[in-house]
Amino acid sequence: MPDLSALLWPNVVAVIGASPEPDILRGRIMQVMNGHAYKGTVYPISRSHDEILGRRCYASIDKVPEKVDLAILIIPAQFVPATLAACGEAGVRAAQILTSGFAEEPGEGGAAMEDEIRAIAKRYDMAVFGPNSEGFANALNALCPTFSPAVDKTERPLLPPWRQNGHITVVAQSGGMGFAFYDHGRPKELPFNYIVTTGNEACLGILDVVDHLLDEGKTDAFILFMEDVKRGEQLCRVAEKALKAGKPIILTKIGTSDAGARAAASHTASLAGSYQAYQGIFQRYGIIEGGNTEEIVDIAAAFSYHGRNLPKGKRVGICTASGGGGGWMADLCVSAGLEIPELDAKTRATIDAYLPAYGTSQNPIDATAQAVRVTGYGGLARMAAGSDILDGIITVASCRHPGVLQREREDLIELAKEVDKPILFCSYTQPHQDSTAILSQAGFPLFGNMANCARAMAEMADYHQLRQRALAAPRIESSDAGSRDKVAAQLAAAGAVLCEYEVKPLLAAYGIATAEEALATSANDAVALAKTFSGPVALKIQSPDILHKTEAGGLALSLATDAAVRTAYDQVMAAATAQTRGVLVQAMAPKGHEMILGINHDATFGPMLMLGFGGIYVEVNPDVALTPVPLDRGAAVALLDRLAGRPLLDGVRGEGPADIDALLDLVVKLSRFAADHGAMIGELDLNPVLVHPAGQGISVVDALLVKRS
Amino acid sequence: MPDLSALLWPNVVAVIGASPEPDILRGRIMQVMNGHAYKGTVYPISRSHDEILGRRCYASIDKVPEKVDLAILIIPAQFVPATLAACGEAGVRAAQILTSGFAEEPGEGGAAMEDEIRAIAKRYDMAVFGPNSEGFANALNALCPTFSPAVDKTERPLLPPWRQNGHITVVAQSGGMGFAFYDHGRPKELPFNYIVTTGNEACLGILDVVDHLLDEGKTDAFILFMEDVKRGEQLCRVAEKALKAGKPIILTKIGTSDAGARAAASHTASLAGSYQAYQGIFQRYGIIEGGNTEEIVDIAAAFSYHGRNLPKGKRVGICTASGGGGGWMADLCVSAGLEIPELDAKTRATIDAYLPAYGTSQNPIDATAQAVRVTGYGGLARMAAGSDILDGIITVASCRHPGVLQREREDLIELAKEVDKPILFCSYTQPHQDSTAILSQAGFPLFGNMANCARAMAEMADYHQLRQRALAAPRIESSDAGSRDKVAAQLAAAGAVLCEYEVKPLLAAYGIATAEEALATSANDAVALAKTFSGPVALKIQSPDILHKTEAGGLALSLATDAAVRTAYDQVMAAATAQTRGVLVQAMAPKGHEMILGINHDATFGPMLMLGFGGIYVEVNPDVALTPVPLDRGAAVALLDRLAGRPLLDGVRGEGPADIDALLDLVVKLSRFAADHGAMIGELDLNPVLVHPAGQGISVVDALLVKRS
Repeated sequence: MPDLSALLWPNVVAVIGASPEPDILRGRIMQVMNGHAYKGTVYPISRSHDEILGRRCYASIDKVPEKVDLAILIIPAQFVPATLAACGEAGVRAAQILTSGFAEEPGEGGAAMEDEIRAIAKRYDMAVFGPNSEGFANALNALCPTFSPAVDKTERPLLPPWRQNGHITVVAQSGGMGFAFYDHGRPKELPFNYIVTTGNEACLGILDVVDHLLDEGKTDAFILFMEDVKRGEQLCRVAEKALKAGKPIILTKIGTSDAGARAAASHTASLAGSYQAYQGIFQRYGIIEGGNTEEIVDIAAAFSYHGRNLPKGKRVGICTASGGGGGWMADLCVSAGLEIPELDAKTRATIDAYLPAYGTSQNPIDATAQAVRVTGYGGLARMAAGSDILDGIITVASCRHPGVLQREREDLIELAKEVDKPILFCSYTQPHQDSTAILSQAGFPLFGNMANCARAMAEMADYHQLRQRALAAPRIESSDAGSRDKVAAQLAAAGAVLCEYEVKPLLAAYGIATAEEALATSANDAVALAKTFSGPVALKIQSPDILHKTEAGGLALSLATDAAVRTAYDQVMAAATAQTRGVLVQAMAPKGHEMILGINHDATFGPMLMLGFGGIYVEVNPDVALTPVPLDRGAAVALLDRLAGRPLLDGVRGEGPADIDALLDLVVKLSRFAADHGAMIGELDLNPVLVHPAGQGISVVDALLVKRS
Repeated sequence: MPDLSALLWPNVVAVIGASPEPDILRGRIMQVMNGHAYKGTVYPISRSHDEILGRRCYASIDKVPEKVDLAILIIPAQFVPATLAACGEAGVRAAQILTSGFAEEPGEGGAAMEDEIRAIAKRYDMAVFGPNSEGFANALNALCPTFSPAVDKTERPLLPPWRQNGHITVVAQSGGMGFAFYDHGRPKELPFNYIVTTGNEACLGILDVVDHLLDEGKTDAFILFMEDVKRGEQLCRVAEKALKAGKPIILTKIGTSDAGARAAASHTASLAGSYQAYQGIFQRYGIIEGGNTEEIVDIAAAFSYHGRNLPKGKRVGICTASGGGGGWMADLCVSAGLEIPELDAKTRATIDAYLPAYGTSQNPIDATAQAVRVTGYGGLARMAAGSDILDGIITVASCRHPGVLQREREDLIELAKEVDKPILFCSYTQPHQDSTAILSQAGFPLFGNMANCARAMAEMADYHQLRQRALAAPRIESSDAGSRDKVAAQLAAAGAVLCEYEVKPLLAAYGIATAEEALATSANDAVALAKTFSGPVALKIQSPDILHKTEAGGLALSLATDAAVRTAYDQVMAAATAQTRGVLVQAMAPKGHEMILGINHDATFGPMLMLGFGGIYVEVNPDVALTPVPLDRGAAVALLDRLAGRPLLDGVRGEGPADIDALLDLVVKLSRFAADHGAMIGELDLNPVLVHPAGQGISVVDALLVKRS
């Protein structure tokens, strides 16, 4: 990968196509750059002007008197390839192409030009953003080569001067949306170090940027606006790297609806993958999906301030002077998955010393305005944070007038030093800018949306837990090479569809137990086999033509006598096709929870393991979860926990717990099978898998594998 | 009910306990009132001051030289009853008690004082808010008897001067939360006519206020912050009245979690009812629940502007110059239940005339910044609104700079006159106040949150549909008086628990068909009865002691022979208790979709009908919906539509549609049964009810009634 440092941290920048006209994009970019105290040098490249905004122009890149690090191209599309090549010749190390009119247009021309751009970038080892990008901003260096009005000169500096850590980076394909996050977040006094918009991503994509910034180490949380991912494996790799580094990614993935996908496709000339697969990857690696700009910014805000003191659990104390506000926040916390425990007697006694009779310290702690005038919101939060049974504090206040917090400014600074639990402040009125600043200077975020505040706390707790588990996870053992090669050879040799009798031995090579079962090719065979098994048997026709045995009449269950087996054999064989291989005789499995497992090939991410509950709701409201493979046991637990039906396995209906251990074991083994052979598997269905009571294992009752075509 | 007009529209107001000190609440209220151009007279009542803010003080209410309409009491709690009585004596018609320290305090004293207040109010026929209220604001009359800083004198008038309709009223028990809605909504240029906070509601509650304002007719949408409802039937009545009047109610109900309920209970001294029952009522009458302040205000904003041209359906066109923004909005619309159809060829051709090659008119319509400079956002929306296949338009734009909309100000005014479909504008950057004002003056809302904008459109479409149905609903026929009285007598005479054999005849009196079934008291009886039924039978022990027959061994199924019936009879009777009445012999029902119906007594709302799907998910994720009774058929359809499993009845698994007609018929009949006899029913369970294929009816396979104790 070319060096992104030259792109983001250039000393010398050339703007090719620069103009003095403030009303056209080529002039706006000069205006925007000029509005900030960038310490490097900016050369406008223009044939029609001698100087722009006091900077001398040069007619072409090779005329610039010093070596240029970054070239910004804002010239008609047809001139872009040659100009980029000229930059390469002149030793330019990075380029950003703002021009549109490439692959997002109908026809082949634009895509071909992007291929050309890619080739040129490779030839000269240049780091290139775009085309069709809106530019980027490096707030740390006051460099804003973009025409986005969001970072045009404003009354506010690009970064809150007092924020030395908790930096947030925005990376987006869409320029408008990328800078919108900054626009929403800056008034919250959030320190955005980079806003990068990558446009059509002919060369560098958003994941390349994240990957680089993880190495660079200046970013503490990422906001991504994702339209598509070109290389699925890169998302997994970068997401895992970010998780291990403790740098959360908060994002939205557009294209989840057909109409959204239509928009993404026409807009950045690419097709979106399966949203379910994306979700599987997000959940596996702790990537947080946000529903709207404000929510995403608010979640990032929580991590920006409290990334180094995340809540160790989900128990929250709510401090307020508004009974109504505290009650609403309690509901919102619970619906976000948090707990609001009744406070312990010791902490209550401490707080009660300040409360009038109509206040309460039970939690929500409704201290009343009267008590808060004495304790301050900081003092109240401090007392609550002292409780051993709380992992984090949410303070609900009205911050529309700065006076409330001004009088406890010093105490809030002390509070941040003393308490190592996260304390989120939330204003139920519109927060005054000074209120936000006072809290920010102390080290606390101020939310203006109660639901976002509750969710941010919950996401921090979940992230902490997931990351601890990921850091503690053992290295996944590789499969036995002999078994792996043997299965690979068998799979390669098999036909397009593998019936149950062919799939089971492959699974057995990965330690997945099969039932008592064997293929019969005559009624006599079947009767003889059935005798050797314990209990009644099932007969199942085995033919690659018959994907739905029940509908075809190729299935008979619960056969307890020789006669029944013999009759059933003939009935089942009546469904036979030319390709029929025989009838699988299988001991009937005992009862159990009906689950489904499978492997599906996703166009973007390759093999994904699927786990879910069967039953009547599969069609209308499937309870399934996907994940990339392989999985360690901890990841298998997390996968299972994502199912709404999970509590059923604990025996909520009074029938006792199911054999969850055996199920997890199956998930882990199947994930290795998928990792080793996913390239050859279009679809593998184990449906149903019966999960028996604890200690009694699982039964894989059916299996079908369709190879990738 | 006393006349609320005297409270909200007084000509003469006395503030009892007024003070000139701006730092205490008794002084703040004078400051706040003084900040607005109220045309009536305000008399401070004070013994320690001669004048306050230039107004002459009087020592007591009877000294005031003219008749007072409204008295504001902000004096210590113990003086409230006597002072209120003095007001009554002086002919004061209304009072607002801001003082706290009543039923929200521990002990009996506060509640007793509230009883006293209630008695005094009744004696003098006074309309009374409070105690423990934060006051109200009547923006139409510039009257703000409240100490809320939200309506303190600001640079902005209380109402946007150009808004002549679409008025929004906030009614809340909680003062802080009530005024928070105004605080969030006023910058959006929303016309709040009243903000009313009712506190402990010793006399008047929020529903009294809504009821009065529906009659008054000055309000077009209501925002409620609801902690509890004291009289369930009032909620149903007022909600239905609002729906018929086309005045939407948008609210949050706190106390949905245990912790939230704890807060509500300690805060306003009352217990919250069952949240599921609340939801049933909200959904029945089109009450819209919002998740946070901003969302509630945004939904109200949509109705404020477009209440008279609601979308006739769910098909939305998205206009934008940001491909990313349009795509995200499309996803959000779809997830809110809207449709984003591909645009028709005619409309596309009209739009395409303006688009560059890299734009698209498919929908989302990504016109690009280049085309929007020509058409304007208004012009683009006009073209899209011309399409027959769209019910509403959402325009996604960046409105952080007012310039964008300023240049099309006149055209936007024209647009609002020409187009009768709702057009919602949404800024993906933080909207500039002038952008909001320009759109507001034309007649359009501007959203700053894309998810809220999508949801607001969806809620308008749903509300329109529900209201049309409610207006068209036939009057529900009353039950046959003879049957009703007979069933009532039988119910009254029965024991605490009615077994299936006792319940079924009661249901039959309401036209609910029973299976072939009869009670047997000997094995011979059972065998004889079974012979007269078609097909195999089930035996079920009938005892008020045995609520769970399966667990008790009191159930035998699919008995096809005399011998089987005889054996089963003895087995089943082995579970008999002293109270056993015999064994119900019942023809086995054919297969069907397993559903559950029931009647449950809710502490707040009385009898609620419950409809849901059975199956494994009932325990972990119940798919059930509640509703008040009785129901017409349209309401039964709406109830069924609330179930996630609803599509199962259409035969999504390929088995053909179920007998939905018969199910709806059962729901309607059972709702009449509940309406007539709910007062005697603690719980009635029909579980399961089997819904057979279309034309083949339903089977009520089990029934149990527990009377209210």
